[in-house]
Amino acid sequence: MSKVDIVVSEVGPRDGLQSVKRTMPTEAKLRWIKALADAGMREIEVGSFVSPKLLPQMADAADVVAQAIHIPDITVLALVPNLKGAQRAFAAGAHKVSMPVSASRLHSQSNINMTPEQAIEAVRTVCALRDTLPRRPGVEAGISTAFGCTMEGPVSEDWVIEVAKRLAEAGADCVNLADTTGMANPAQIKRMFKRLKAELGDKAGAAHLHNTRGQGLANVVAALDAGVTTFDSSHAGLGGCPYAPGATGNIVTEDLVFLLESMGLRTGIDLDKLIAARDLITRGLPGETLYGHVADAGLPKGFVPASAGAA
Amino acid sequence: MSKVDIVVSEVGPRDGLQSVKRTMPTEAKLRWIKALADAGMREIEVGSFVSPKLLPQMADAADVVAQAIHIPDITVLALVPNLKGAQRAFAAGAHKVSMPVSASRLHSQSNINMTPEQAIEAVRTVCALRDTLPRRPGVEAGISTAFGCTMEGPVSEDWVIEVAKRLAEAGADCVNLADTTGMANPAQIKRMFKRLKAELGDKAGAAHLHNTRGQGLANVVAALDAGVTTFDSSHAGLGGCPYAPGATGNIVTEDLVFLLESMGLRTGIDLDKLIAARDLITRGLPGETLYGHVADAGLPKGFVPASAGAA
Repeated sequence: MSKVDIVVSEVGPRDGLQSVKRTMPTEAKLRWIKALADAGMREIEVGSFVSPKLLPQMADAADVVAQAIHIPDITVLALVPNLKGAQRAFAAGAHKVSMPVSASRLHSQSNINMTPEQAIEAVRTVCALRDTLPRRPGVEAGISTAFGCTMEGPVSEDWVIEVAKRLAEAGADCVNLADTTGMANPAQIKRMFKRLKAELGDKAGAAHLHNTRGQGLANVVAALDAGVTTFDSSHAGLGGCPYAPGATGNIVTEDLVFLLESMGLRTGIDLDKLIAARDLITRGLPGETLYGHVADAGLPKGFVPASAGAA
Repeated sequence: MSKVDIVVSEVGPRDGLQSVKRTMPTEAKLRWIKALADAGMREIEVGSFVSPKLLPQMADAADVVAQAIHIPDITVLALVPNLKGAQRAFAAGAHKVSMPVSASRLHSQSNINMTPEQAIEAVRTVCALRDTLPRRPGVEAGISTAFGCTMEGPVSEDWVIEVAKRLAEAGADCVNLADTTGMANPAQIKRMFKRLKAELGDKAGAAHLHNTRGQGLANVVAALDAGVTTFDSSHAGLGGCPYAPGATGNIVTEDLVFLLESMGLRTGIDLDKLIAARDLITRGLPGETLYGHVADAGLPKGFVPASAGAA
């Protein structure tokens, strides 16, 4: 594998698919995940271990994880809200789990029916379980509503950093900050990721950004300035009409990779293959709307991605 | 007037309307321009003095300029391709004219049927005319395809800077760099605007950015880092389905103002009024598609614009 400067962590098969009403068949999910791996993606969040009553689209998470771990060279990530989910994810063989902890009390209560403090304790319990496993899977925590909440409005930056410190202390391998609601601005992003790095050192994690108000890639530039080296994004912006209320609106993987590669930052991802892989979404969910400017406009004439020199 | 940190220069009535097939009636243009001024915009490009055969949408440019100059507190800007256009614009009372000079030879030939050298000489002639006028209107030059050309591919950065120096020497009050083709990336934007400032000092001008590949606001962040203080943008992204070949795809004024105000940079523009003013476009061009994430998603709960503290 070539060296990369930035890790682009794909969340489409989890964050994207859970925002789509229809369910993509398991085999179609796996074909899509394989195509993403073939395009050079090295970390893919493939599902969520929540109640199938809440998210029937994720009912096959254990199957998807159990098969995806046989795809070479990828880290298979799964979202888990609690210990029970983590037990299932670890049993299926997930390389890493991601746990959401909301900085906003109202959002935390409505999203996972826990206070932030309870969610931090859930992370501690999962880390304790992890420490008993010989293969030691990863545990990352993602602080949602870290830049504002649709219910509470602005969220205290000091409190977000305090939650991050408690999560690191609870045993999380890294702590991500998520702009769940698309409220972040570049100045805030730069300030917060610098603080995260100063407080957490190597445990300072990824930026999970949404494009709800069109600011997603602007925030990436600010996060790069603050030293962030991992970004979450969704292939074809799946599940995220950024305009519809409640839609995810993750930043689009193709547009993010184009940004990074054109800036001279190697992602190891082949943009042509990544764009071609959009077909796999359409095959699994016929008629689903796909997003992304680069796929629509095409690559510029004479474009040379940074990764072309990294082989 | 309150102090502003960043000037947002509206190009919709020119760049937007010339990309729309239908023609907005003169009175509708003026109502729209007034609404933009009421929202706090202080510089508006209201038309283009080109042949009405080429751009019938701009046939009323002299009328629009002659009336717009009576709107209080705005700088009325017009695009002129040559001396003849400048004579008409100055006669109509334009406060400032903007002249396009393409760095790409192929683009220059196909766009204005001149070599870059001839276009620079045209700027010199217009500046000489300006110097004979008692009220001394402004002359700015905009280097198009400054970050790449759809026909030529990459454009030499040294050549772009050389063109900028020659334009300043020819008498232009300031020189802007335009990403006409949506090919720029933040690293290049930062590098080029830093060079522009180093070479031209106070004559280093605005960033004119397109969102063709979704990178428009990311490039704004980089330009801010390089010290740029004036940005062009188009209200409601008019004329710019960023996907359609040949469409302009200017960055959207509402999204740009939200970015700047949320970063703590005062634009003096009232976002609510700016969003409400979209109705004037619809009244002038019923059914025309409007763009912009902020107008669709709404302002975040608890949002306080920087300009709120500047009154």
